[in-house]
Amino acid sequence: MLVTVDDIRRAIESVEGVVLRTPVVGSATRPGLLIKAENLQPTGAFKVRGAVHAIASLSDDARAAGVVTHSSGNHGQALAWAANRAGIPCVVVMPEGSAPVKIDAVRRLGATVEMVPAGRRQERAQQIVEERGLTLVPPYDHPHIIAGQGTVALEILTDVRWPAAVLVPVGGGGLASGVATAVKALAPATRVIGVEPELAADAAESLAAGRRVTWPVEQTGRTVADGLRTGLSDLTYAHLSAYLDGIVTVTEAEILSTMGALAREYRLVVEPSGAVAAAAWLHRAAALRDRFGLGDDPVVAVASGGNVDPALLADALTA
Amino acid sequence: MLVTVDDIRRAIESVEGVVLRTPVVGSATRPGLLIKAENLQPTGAFKVRGAVHAIASLSDDARAAGVVTHSSGNHGQALAWAANRAGIPCVVVMPEGSAPVKIDAVRRLGATVEMVPAGRRQERAQQIVEERGLTLVPPYDHPHIIAGQGTVALEILTDVRWPAAVLVPVGGGGLASGVATAVKALAPATRVIGVEPELAADAAESLAAGRRVTWPVEQTGRTVADGLRTGLSDLTYAHLSAYLDGIVTVTEAEILSTMGALAREYRLVVEPSGAVAAAAWLHRAAALRDRFGLGDDPVVAVASGGNVDPALLADALTA
Repeated sequence: MLVTVDDIRRAIESVEGVVLRTPVVGSATRPGLLIKAENLQPTGAFKVRGAVHAIASLSDDARAAGVVTHSSGNHGQALAWAANRAGIPCVVVMPEGSAPVKIDAVRRLGATVEMVPAGRRQERAQQIVEERGLTLVPPYDHPHIIAGQGTVALEILTDVRWPAAVLVPVGGGGLASGVATAVKALAPATRVIGVEPELAADAAESLAAGRRVTWPVEQTGRTVADGLRTGLSDLTYAHLSAYLDGIVTVTEAEILSTMGALAREYRLVVEPSGAVAAAAWLHRAAALRDRFGLGDDPVVAVASGGNVDPALLADALTA
Repeated sequence: MLVTVDDIRRAIESVEGVVLRTPVVGSATRPGLLIKAENLQPTGAFKVRGAVHAIASLSDDARAAGVVTHSSGNHGQALAWAANRAGIPCVVVMPEGSAPVKIDAVRRLGATVEMVPAGRRQERAQQIVEERGLTLVPPYDHPHIIAGQGTVALEILTDVRWPAAVLVPVGGGGLASGVATAVKALAPATRVIGVEPELAADAAESLAAGRRVTWPVEQTGRTVADGLRTGLSDLTYAHLSAYLDGIVTVTEAEILSTMGALAREYRLVVEPSGAVAAAAWLHRAAALRDRFGLGDDPVVAVASGGNVDPALLADALTA
């Protein structure tokens, strides 16, 4: 069962007044490209939307017990933040060897961190669910998460009437699923284009093949866009194959140069995964116009997050 | 005659839907400090607010003739942008030797650039007013400009009820005058604190002396915060002495380290002049709490602009 725009409308009631109503940022230097600045969320990524809605959708009993997840990245921080805001317990299972700065970030947000050997994260999270009755909140493979991430699109379509296209990064596919669902329901003439790193183009291959294809982590692990190394789930594949107008890929060099351009021209700090959507427009505008039949209305690229290694951003700024 | 909050309410009708309704950005890492992100305006600075309102306030005849200014920095770009949006002619007088990138930026925004020997900018702008009937739009010394910049505070007070303090940079004093006027009318318990670089602390000295004091440009020219090297006018001095709760200063090192912190923790690219307000809180919170009797409500710092040399930002990121 696919998420509907009504599910996303319910999600926006959960997130309003809790997450940031992020702006669609323009630059006098590039009138055709607008950036939906999800990097400005309090934990630096759109993930707070799904986390807040998932928690708001819990029964009273489930809220009292709390939530658990096994993401070590932006979703872990988002769930910890959302649980703290809701005043409920949160456990984040992280693999031994995680960067101390990431472990500290989750702890400072009030969550309990459990360290386990790499590869045992999922198993341990499941064990916590069974033993202690916490609810597992996965990073993308859940209707509430997809509906929460889809609120990004409701805001875009309130602020920009109407964009020629919305460009959205594709990793696990939660954000792209929610955005495509909302846009196709509310602005069917607006194209929704997924963007992936060439080195993690499993979703592009899946859509082309007509079935969900997974790439080995040794392959996807090579992209600098660490948030997009994950593959689709059956649920996100179903949304993307139903609603996405297409997927394009960008190179590593294009991702890095776009981080520099977004900092210089839009004054936004964006992580590699957050830069791919804008990179597609900065480096492929003519091809995209042609392939998707885009008119002169502006294009909106979702900058999904801004948690970047400062040294990498410094390099991108001066490259 | 001082600008009133009603003047600022009229200005918000000019700017709504034209300039960006910038967010007040929080960070999970620093719950007490919120950033009003004026660096996200299309030309990278709050200056578009005053420029748009000044143009909207012209008579039909004056609009037909156009506008002129002699700022080579953020105000010049803002006026060019606002005139272009309004479809009226704009001349920006710039000193010979201006950075080509700044000249190009103004030209790309559709304005005519007139180059004159340094030191003859004001004279030439005045001549254009007399010969061609264009209206001079100064960077800060005008009630319409002050009212336009004051719209920043109306938005802050809509989004944050109520901040313990609003911290605002002081250069020529237009922004600080407008913000202080609005805050004292609408939220009298909220403190309004001006912030200057130690190397350009002419406003702090003026308020302490009870009269307008100017510092030589050889002195103020030493601060990295190039937007704050200007002194007050009689008009902005009158507003600041009437409404500001106080002025504090920050060092050059504090400004640069705050640029890094805002990029890493708030994902915002901020220029040195735009970082001084946040710098005061990051480096002086205890002293400010004490001096101004601040409670536990959050403090809002205005990040006034983001037009920074990429190499300088790269240094600040990794320092």
